[in-house]
Amino acid sequence: PYFEATERYGCKSYTTYNNMYLPLVYEDLVSDYWHIKNGVTLWDVGCERQVEITGPDAYRFMQHLTPRDLSNFKVGQCMYVVLTAADGGIINDPVALRLGDNHFWLSVADRDVLSWARALAIGYRMQVNITEPDVSPLAIQGPKSFDVAAELFGDWVRELGYFWSRETELDGIPMVLTRTGWSKQGGYELFLQDGSQGDRLWEIVMEAGRPHDIKPATPSSIERVESGLLNYWEDITEETNPYEIGMGRFVALDQEVDFIGKDALRKANEDGLKRQLAGLVMHSEPLAQLARPWAVKRDGDKVGTISSAIYSPDLDKNLAIAMLDTDSTTPGTELSVDMGHTRVPATVTKMPFIDNRDKVWAGLKQAG
Amino acid sequence: PYFEATERYGCKSYTTYNNMYLPLVYEDLVSDYWHIKNGVTLWDVGCERQVEITGPDAYRFMQHLTPRDLSNFKVGQCMYVVLTAADGGIINDPVALRLGDNHFWLSVADRDVLSWARALAIGYRMQVNITEPDVSPLAIQGPKSFDVAAELFGDWVRELGYFWSRETELDGIPMVLTRTGWSKQGGYELFLQDGSQGDRLWEIVMEAGRPHDIKPATPSSIERVESGLLNYWEDITEETNPYEIGMGRFVALDQEVDFIGKDALRKANEDGLKRQLAGLVMHSEPLAQLARPWAVKRDGDKVGTISSAIYSPDLDKNLAIAMLDTDSTTPGTELSVDMGHTRVPATVTKMPFIDNRDKVWAGLKQAG
Repeated sequence: PYFEATERYGCKSYTTYNNMYLPLVYEDLVSDYWHIKNGVTLWDVGCERQVEITGPDAYRFMQHLTPRDLSNFKVGQCMYVVLTAADGGIINDPVALRLGDNHFWLSVADRDVLSWARALAIGYRMQVNITEPDVSPLAIQGPKSFDVAAELFGDWVRELGYFWSRETELDGIPMVLTRTGWSKQGGYELFLQDGSQGDRLWEIVMEAGRPHDIKPATPSSIERVESGLLNYWEDITEETNPYEIGMGRFVALDQEVDFIGKDALRKANEDGLKRQLAGLVMHSEPLAQLARPWAVKRDGDKVGTISSAIYSPDLDKNLAIAMLDTDSTTPGTELSVDMGHTRVPATVTKMPFIDNRDKVWAGLKQAG
Repeated sequence: PYFEATERYGCKSYTTYNNMYLPLVYEDLVSDYWHIKNGVTLWDVGCERQVEITGPDAYRFMQHLTPRDLSNFKVGQCMYVVLTAADGGIINDPVALRLGDNHFWLSVADRDVLSWARALAIGYRMQVNITEPDVSPLAIQGPKSFDVAAELFGDWVRELGYFWSRETELDGIPMVLTRTGWSKQGGYELFLQDGSQGDRLWEIVMEAGRPHDIKPATPSSIERVESGLLNYWEDITEETNPYEIGMGRFVALDQEVDFIGKDALRKANEDGLKRQLAGLVMHSEPLAQLARPWAVKRDGDKVGTISSAIYSPDLDKNLAIAMLDTDSTTPGTELSVDMGHTRVPATVTKMPFIDNRDKVWAGLKQAG
């Protein structure tokens, strides 16, 4: 719904994500990055498709999809959930929205959860209806996003809790507004519920944002690494389980629900963690290339693999996320990254590399 | 496995397909097209991922995945199968390979069949093992592909039946060779079974192909429309059923197997066909742009939607595939295509636009 707008506003390149175009670059990666950290940016994330689950068994079905305990999942709330396969591997890590007792959206990463959920429903014989509704998120992210949202919707948005939602509208355009987004700079997602109004919504937001110097941009691959946000297909795959990616707190083995992957995850929990994601600082010239699954070594032996790596202009350091043997994940451990043509020394570091919570909090509480 | 080779040989752009890179252009779309029609081309189609189904219930499981009658599916054979959801909509249209009584590969189009099949297996409680093995097809396509394959493997490949396979090797590199491919110019697919050998395999094929002027190219979006080959996400989606895309002959309602979508497809068959894919010739200047879902009109009323459209240099005509109301699909029917800024007259035409079978047959029988 926003594609024409992104072209009009100078998007230079796209990738595909859930079979849609996802903008990658407007000005350049670094300018776009500074703007989300210091100002406010508008993102076409229509490619975050929704899998809608309704019907009398919708809540029960949801409980089977994820190891997370959903018993406190309130209507109006959003929850980060990992979806696991029978072997405990992660097949997606969406944000779930509970819009009614038996009405859910899964705002999915780049993988076909619609097929997964529909095929499960065939086997479970539950009374659920699973569709991809006409819903396409537009995100406003960055410290000034609170002011822009207040201008658009009113001051109540400053009180909207983190990971809470509200059904609303703008000039007759229906949407669900959430305080979520794939950055740690603060912000909202506008879940547009009428694709034909995408261009009009874009212009309404741009207009309200102009006094705050809003700029179209994209999810920032630099900011998300700084903030320790994980990316499906890079840091998370079906080969990784929730414990290994640091999301063990979202696995509730003690609940009665027989969620998918429960036996495998119980065993993984009993066996203990053999490898896990950790942060690395790579001591080298600024990385100019995309990360590849470079081997991480310790005293010559392979102890893991890089899943993401990028140069942070803010920290003036190369940051990386790597899946490492657990006994090599203590902060301060000295390792090296084998990039094929060269070997680079690296130090294990805590994640997130930058903790932005205080700054976001300040931005939220500030007068408009 | 072939990515480095495609870069080395001058691939200019890629798309993503099953989360891998699929080359789009080497020289230019039209040169690449003429070369597959008159010579032989080498394609990196490693993105055609395989979903492997094994285990004691593999055959029974396969029968549930597709409406096609598999009772004559012999070991060594390949079969085009549509996979349907409960509502009869198509979720993929792979080529299936039967490698053993209970050993199948689904060579899938760009959609996540691995998740679909694994989720079904959870419900069916059948004894199946579903994985994505280390298998990455490389295709040689075009009238001279028979000579290149004979040089590589020996003259037995000229006798390999259409849609048959054989396990073989080249210089120690294990693979399954099939007489298949996403063109109607004749050819083979080499299902490499060791990703680490991709670059070596590429060079072996290039070397054998040089006397026949082999060139790296890509699946041709022009040739495939001329030949009436359908593309998932364009001509086929989950909104279309097998009857509507002209694949009703692969729906066996009279078999005992309770395949997924049987009730819905029985009803669709009883209700009769309301719309179906048809060929159109668009009477206008050569199309320079990608097809969009332009409305097709008859006497001002909308009767359908374009799913693919491209200029054919061979026929010097704009060819299109459209989903049309059945009573507007008789060849010769005069329609128009509403491209927004302009309206173009169009005539319904039989598909394929070019029937290449005799030419392929001649190429196959010719002495090497």
